[in-house]
Amino acid sequence: MLGLMQNRPLLISSLIEHANACHPGTEIVSRTVEGPIHRCTYGDIHRRSKQVANALTALGVEPGDRIATLAWNGYRHMELYFGVSGMGAVLHTINPRLFPEQIEYIVNHAEDQYLFFDLSFAPLVAKLAPAFRSVKGFVAMTDRAHMPAIDVPNLNCYEELVEAQSPEYAWPALDENTASSLCYTSGTTGHPKGVLYSHRSTVLHSFAVCAADGIGLGSAECALLVVPMFHVNAWGTPYAGAMCGARLVMPGPGLDGKSVYELMRDEKVTLALGVPTVWLMLFKHVDENRLAPKRELSLQRVVIGGSAAPQAMCEKFDSDFGAFVVHAWGMTEMSPLGTICNLLPKHASFTARQRLDVQKKQGRTIFGVELKIVDGEGRRLPHDGVAFGHLMARGPWVTSGYFGDSEALLDNEGYFDTGDVATIDADGYMQITDRSKDVIKSGGEWISSIDLENAAVGHPAVAEAAVIGVPHEKWQERPLLIVVPKQGHEVSHDELLAFLEGKVAKWWLPDDVVFVDELPHTATGKLQKLKLREQFRDYRLPERAA
Amino acid sequence: MLGLMQNRPLLISSLIEHANACHPGTEIVSRTVEGPIHRCTYGDIHRRSKQVANALTALGVEPGDRIATLAWNGYRHMELYFGVSGMGAVLHTINPRLFPEQIEYIVNHAEDQYLFFDLSFAPLVAKLAPAFRSVKGFVAMTDRAHMPAIDVPNLNCYEELVEAQSPEYAWPALDENTASSLCYTSGTTGHPKGVLYSHRSTVLHSFAVCAADGIGLGSAECALLVVPMFHVNAWGTPYAGAMCGARLVMPGPGLDGKSVYELMRDEKVTLALGVPTVWLMLFKHVDENRLAPKRELSLQRVVIGGSAAPQAMCEKFDSDFGAFVVHAWGMTEMSPLGTICNLLPKHASFTARQRLDVQKKQGRTIFGVELKIVDGEGRRLPHDGVAFGHLMARGPWVTSGYFGDSEALLDNEGYFDTGDVATIDADGYMQITDRSKDVIKSGGEWISSIDLENAAVGHPAVAEAAVIGVPHEKWQERPLLIVVPKQGHEVSHDELLAFLEGKVAKWWLPDDVVFVDELPHTATGKLQKLKLREQFRDYRLPERAA
Repeated sequence: MLGLMQNRPLLISSLIEHANACHPGTEIVSRTVEGPIHRCTYGDIHRRSKQVANALTALGVEPGDRIATLAWNGYRHMELYFGVSGMGAVLHTINPRLFPEQIEYIVNHAEDQYLFFDLSFAPLVAKLAPAFRSVKGFVAMTDRAHMPAIDVPNLNCYEELVEAQSPEYAWPALDENTASSLCYTSGTTGHPKGVLYSHRSTVLHSFAVCAADGIGLGSAECALLVVPMFHVNAWGTPYAGAMCGARLVMPGPGLDGKSVYELMRDEKVTLALGVPTVWLMLFKHVDENRLAPKRELSLQRVVIGGSAAPQAMCEKFDSDFGAFVVHAWGMTEMSPLGTICNLLPKHASFTARQRLDVQKKQGRTIFGVELKIVDGEGRRLPHDGVAFGHLMARGPWVTSGYFGDSEALLDNEGYFDTGDVATIDADGYMQITDRSKDVIKSGGEWISSIDLENAAVGHPAVAEAAVIGVPHEKWQERPLLIVVPKQGHEVSHDELLAFLEGKVAKWWLPDDVVFVDELPHTATGKLQKLKLREQFRDYRLPERAA
Repeated sequence: MLGLMQNRPLLISSLIEHANACHPGTEIVSRTVEGPIHRCTYGDIHRRSKQVANALTALGVEPGDRIATLAWNGYRHMELYFGVSGMGAVLHTINPRLFPEQIEYIVNHAEDQYLFFDLSFAPLVAKLAPAFRSVKGFVAMTDRAHMPAIDVPNLNCYEELVEAQSPEYAWPALDENTASSLCYTSGTTGHPKGVLYSHRSTVLHSFAVCAADGIGLGSAECALLVVPMFHVNAWGTPYAGAMCGARLVMPGPGLDGKSVYELMRDEKVTLALGVPTVWLMLFKHVDENRLAPKRELSLQRVVIGGSAAPQAMCEKFDSDFGAFVVHAWGMTEMSPLGTICNLLPKHASFTARQRLDVQKKQGRTIFGVELKIVDGEGRRLPHDGVAFGHLMARGPWVTSGYFGDSEALLDNEGYFDTGDVATIDADGYMQITDRSKDVIKSGGEWISSIDLENAAVGHPAVAEAAVIGVPHEKWQERPLLIVVPKQGHEVSHDELLAFLEGKVAKWWLPDDVVFVDELPHTATGKLQKLKLREQFRDYRLPERAA
């Protein structure tokens, strides 16, 4: 028997309709590529997103067509968020930091029909345009006065395109499972893969962003979205902002410390969201200019995701900014939110030290996401904060497969393999201990490469450390510690092993230590373990007493 | 084109599964009918709700069967919330305050298969049992030692029934639109009507309860549910509690001021939810015993709904308890939440007086509910805080029709008529000005009977006032003011009209004033305007200069 509730679909258009009905006057503040700070309201975004929908219709865009963007965080990008998805087309946000050949690949793979771009990316667009096979036209997100002098076919001016249209538009009553946006994630191997979000997944994810135990976004907040709209929809915050009426501040291309700091100060930002790298630039600016953020800013919380927040960062935000760091974890494949590290009432009695130990975990599972950890055979492991296994995720905003890819992704219970290895404790706090491909399988048990690395860099003579598994006849794999010594320091093989003793389980102790001058990194600074494993392919462990 | 997100249904069973995975140790504290305070956890509720599902299966309960409860707020009732709905049956919560003939009517109308009852209601059950046509058996929600000595067919003991079962149970993967619970609402005319909630509506509504701009329920809260689980699912808080891990405190039958106060104090309640009547009893207890709630309690917020919170109540909670009153509005037909009166950042600069003027409104629309106000012809009226019209609601947790009733309820845009007349302002704050049937239609314009009554009771000689519309040849209807003077006071017709001048629009001034000794009320203290209109059916307005 079915219930008798109204059959109303969960649609992205209803988010901006709600914003227009309930907080039309709340501001969206954007730093523009052209220079000035721009101010508009949810009411304006509502009106202009309908003009966008009319403009796309006039261009011949059909439901399901992919419309690409190469753009910073700003009001025009937000208009496209609601206009493109609202009319039933798919917003394909492209990460401009990908390699040009990757951008070429994904535009062709997604079969994008139009590409909207911020002025910063005009040279990139000009260079790649001849390689785009499906793109019928380009739209420069600016006004006539700032149009770029590039030679691409069918180049349009955003402001002319939009303002020529009527703000009257009736959003279609779509099936809530209709595709709404597309974001490619670049793995370490192979081509980037597209994650195709739906209206349903986007609206449900927005509820989690607004939940008190989620990010707790609400009308009381002025939120600075440093996290880019070109990747995983800025963690869903533009949608969630419309849902709750938070004041949003968009940094545009100004991600340097000075620009971010001034925006925080001038707009009285209470909540900021971004990856660790941005905050390091902010800290540098604050330190070099001897600023007093605690006095000058209104910042209360900083949500950090993308990669683990270093403990020193949590401490500095606390001491110098008077702001609490909320650690978050997710993936492009998860819209992205999976866990949020809010504290529980019982932590109120913790010391600062103990609280930091909780804060550095990736956080508690939010309702809507189910997490499990499993061993190599797919058997569930206990949530005791000790056992660690492959982290698997399930839920209405977790992907079931990649765009245009028939590969079956889910296990027999419908869970997606995150590629991480983690522990989960009894309160639902998850902590990542390794990437699955980096964990060392020794005698049927697992050794966390990250735990060993963290222990090794604790030695004063170690600048950087990496641990990889190398083949072992008896144990299958054993850990090899690879160390870059600090300049002017010396440390021996035996000293290092002695240092690690007591810090990790005895059977975790590396079978050998190798010293190198440098470790291979990606462009964004991540350790390239794949390359390291190739480098040490022919390495043989010394014989060791069993 | 559909998105590629996982196809996971929104189910009530996933709420309690989440609670068991992420906050199994968080407490549910219940005052029992048997006497003692009972403590258990979400983990216990999870285990026992599965035992309930197994017990119901053993009793032959099928998906879609209605299972009735006559019970207070308590852990066993909560086990039924998850066990009954989780297995695919429908939890029919019965309001024990209905007239016995109404209870008989709804049990037969719902075709309830089993009836679970708290000991308080044993005499009522014994009396009505012979009239229940569909009920196959009864379950007393207690242990063997406390079984009531009543003579009803197939009487079971809850603890024996549940504890005999295995805690292993695989929740069925239901369609999320499956009916989950049923609650009858008693209108002023005709039989009670059943509102049939679904798993989807219940989960979506829970997101709104947990939203920062909703009730903001979260793991940081210890919430006292004075609002009954036998009506509109205690405003959805048992489900939302499982979603976020709030500590829940259930008052059982102890709704008197002393019991509520002691529970608040002993359990360090931070958030309390209930109707105005309960808080009046609490105030009486505090005043009579000269207690110091601000010092003794941890109360921070009180959510008041059911009927409008008097301004004096907001003030007293603020001054004596240090607690902020959050006004909420909804209906049984709306699961129930429609609006929540949280303040906006701009109100921070308001004076206490100005803030109270905002606080007394019914609140802002939460995402998921769309409200419109329309005139007599169904045309939309502006959201300017001035225009008032029929309040219409739409959304995934608003009813589309009543159980077993084919009457079409929705207008051509899919909106449900709430029966209220209201204004909505530009920030989405809604304020009820009247019931549709009580508003006075004068010359095509509307006059709010409630506004006139509120103005009239401002006169020091007026104890109570009612305004009804009486037929008028030229204007269709004109207001008649009916006044109960305060004992020992006197006031004339002309004095009262002079008093009202300037307080309401000139054309709103009543055409006549009538003095009476008392006004008709319902058992719960509500003014019976229907009766009043009958009483004054033959009344004729005096001739008046046009």
